[in-house]
Amino acid sequence: MSSESSPRPLPLLRAMIDALDRELLQIMARRMSLVAEVAAYKRAHGLHIRDVTREREVLADRARHAEALGLPPGEIESIFRLLLRASRDQQAALRAEVAPDVAPLTVAIVGGSGGMGRVMARVFGDLGHRVLVVDLNTELRAEEAASLADVTIVSVPIDATDAVIRAVGPHVREDALLADVTSIKEAPVSAMLASTRGSVVGTHPMFGPSVHTLQGQRVVLCRARGDAWAEWLTQAFVARGLVVTETTPAAHDRAMSVVQVLTHFQTQVLGLTLARLGTPLPETLRFTSPAYLLELYVAARHFAQSPGLYGPIEMRNPRSADVTAAFEQAAAELSEIVTSGDQARFGAMFEEVRAFFGGFTAEALEQSSFLIDRIVERTETA
Amino acid sequence: MSSESSPRPLPLLRAMIDALDRELLQIMARRMSLVAEVAAYKRAHGLHIRDVTREREVLADRARHAEALGLPPGEIESIFRLLLRASRDQQAALRAEVAPDVAPLTVAIVGGSGGMGRVMARVFGDLGHRVLVVDLNTELRAEEAASLADVTIVSVPIDATDAVIRAVGPHVREDALLADVTSIKEAPVSAMLASTRGSVVGTHPMFGPSVHTLQGQRVVLCRARGDAWAEWLTQAFVARGLVVTETTPAAHDRAMSVVQVLTHFQTQVLGLTLARLGTPLPETLRFTSPAYLLELYVAARHFAQSPGLYGPIEMRNPRSADVTAAFEQAAAELSEIVTSGDQARFGAMFEEVRAFFGGFTAEALEQSSFLIDRIVERTETA
Repeated sequence: MSSESSPRPLPLLRAMIDALDRELLQIMARRMSLVAEVAAYKRAHGLHIRDVTREREVLADRARHAEALGLPPGEIESIFRLLLRASRDQQAALRAEVAPDVAPLTVAIVGGSGGMGRVMARVFGDLGHRVLVVDLNTELRAEEAASLADVTIVSVPIDATDAVIRAVGPHVREDALLADVTSIKEAPVSAMLASTRGSVVGTHPMFGPSVHTLQGQRVVLCRARGDAWAEWLTQAFVARGLVVTETTPAAHDRAMSVVQVLTHFQTQVLGLTLARLGTPLPETLRFTSPAYLLELYVAARHFAQSPGLYGPIEMRNPRSADVTAAFEQAAAELSEIVTSGDQARFGAMFEEVRAFFGGFTAEALEQSSFLIDRIVERTETA
Repeated sequence: MSSESSPRPLPLLRAMIDALDRELLQIMARRMSLVAEVAAYKRAHGLHIRDVTREREVLADRARHAEALGLPPGEIESIFRLLLRASRDQQAALRAEVAPDVAPLTVAIVGGSGGMGRVMARVFGDLGHRVLVVDLNTELRAEEAASLADVTIVSVPIDATDAVIRAVGPHVREDALLADVTSIKEAPVSAMLASTRGSVVGTHPMFGPSVHTLQGQRVVLCRARGDAWAEWLTQAFVARGLVVTETTPAAHDRAMSVVQVLTHFQTQVLGLTLARLGTPLPETLRFTSPAYLLELYVAARHFAQSPGLYGPIEMRNPRSADVTAAFEQAAAELSEIVTSGDQARFGAMFEEVRAFFGGFTAEALEQSSFLIDRIVERTETA
């Protein structure tokens, strides 16, 4: 190495880096072909794709080697997390968790041309099932598909869910399953139970159709009638890498009044305030801190989506009025504190909220710092 | 490859993957030693660390090779962005942007034991300057340090800034620089101009001391008296990888009423609402979507920090009352829309905000999807 005295010329050094990077890619490709063998092995032996113990060992081992080589620990951990995720994605695509002798069923997706309907069609198609797509524009009608199918999944806008369930339910066979993917659960589950004699499961995928990967995304599942089908559905979701959380429709809707109603509402209030204050976005973007950019991304992302989706989520949750009233009251109280300049009251408010978050603040600081680093890294080259 | 017929046993496949990963790490280490040569070359030839054209070429070239090898494009891009960032960090640590013949100056940091003071001490220390740290617990007094220093930087809590500037300013030599790092700019810049005959520059680092890397972080800079020192300071920040945005103190404070006051305020309102609603955090975390987790991280991160920092940022901005009033009004209006269940008005509100964000929504959707993937990936193994 001549790094101290007279370095080699930049074009030569860059060509050498290019060559090393191509070697890196070659090795990653060899890694992927080994992962394909791992997938085949797991499929043959009925093993799960995810092996958290192995993943922890991999990360710890690579960290030890990286340290010995003087490589930066944060970046190395991120790189191997990316490789692990790519590996799980590849195994899922190779159907590693699908038993080779699984019986292919007929799955009807009512609303199968919509965003979430297409995701569901992919989930069940990947698992080897026959998927019947029904939508406003298909020749196949929902009632007909439901009578043919072993599993009927209603994936239509919230406001249409009730009517579609009542139309489709009576055609679902007694030995078949009727399920939905609506963001509220009490009303649709009641409607399904009332309209069919078949098994009933309510689900709520906690992700949008624009998601890059299904690996690790969450689905809430409420079993209502028929444990065998609830377990079949759980297994199908898990086989595609989804995380399943089971609960009751009432507990779901109560949790969503915070998880969805409150967070969407605050995002909408921020957006409306920005619009009303009228400072043009580019003027504030000049002074962007990554934390501000993160908040703007969250807000603008929301408004890139459909008011027809978000309106009913907020309007149909039984606890919405309590949540928005509490928000208004908090805003009024804080506004008064800030305007009066009372630092002691400001400090007391801070302590109250800090006590609520408890130990979560430490995790939040670490995770958000990681994300903010990613924002800095993405936006500077963009 | 025997991936189709009978795969090799899992322990063997895993050992082969371990060996490949160690090869990856070896190559990365060789890459880092080439980067050290690149740093030496850049230093000898007065080149910048960042070369955006080269970075774009690297990403495009690696993407082409990855595609030919059937590697997943998203993960590969992320991996090479991480390597590029690690490479810039390493070059900065090797002082690639510091001219070999730079004259070392004496830089006094008043409040040098605080979080931001330590960052400033590192910035100027890395650049080869003599750093004098002054704080409540040091024997060296601020007035003495200011009279010895070529550059005096006031890095104390907002509420103490004015008094410290007035104490220190008269001791700053006429050929020296007085600067600050306060989150508001009109008041401290006026105080500095009034209290010293030396040059004056106001700065506002738009990041906290917990940041993992300085690369790409933003500093707002307001030149007030003395262009030569303003340029010296700009160059020092740029040499450590910071992005400098220049403006006037008034324009800075106006922009911060949105970038800081509004975003902090809404985070505080969310936090207070969560605390008052009283649903225990673990109960909602069970149902976490990555988007909800992202909002919680942003909020809890805020409350992990000091009310003594955030209180004055909101209370001392001249436009705060307008901002919090607009927020209250938006909350009241939206609350009324949600409670009344008027989807048409909800849709109109959505359109109004969407029009405000304009083309930014597309960028936001892409960037936030990337971040949400990172959250999913980080939290599932955590």
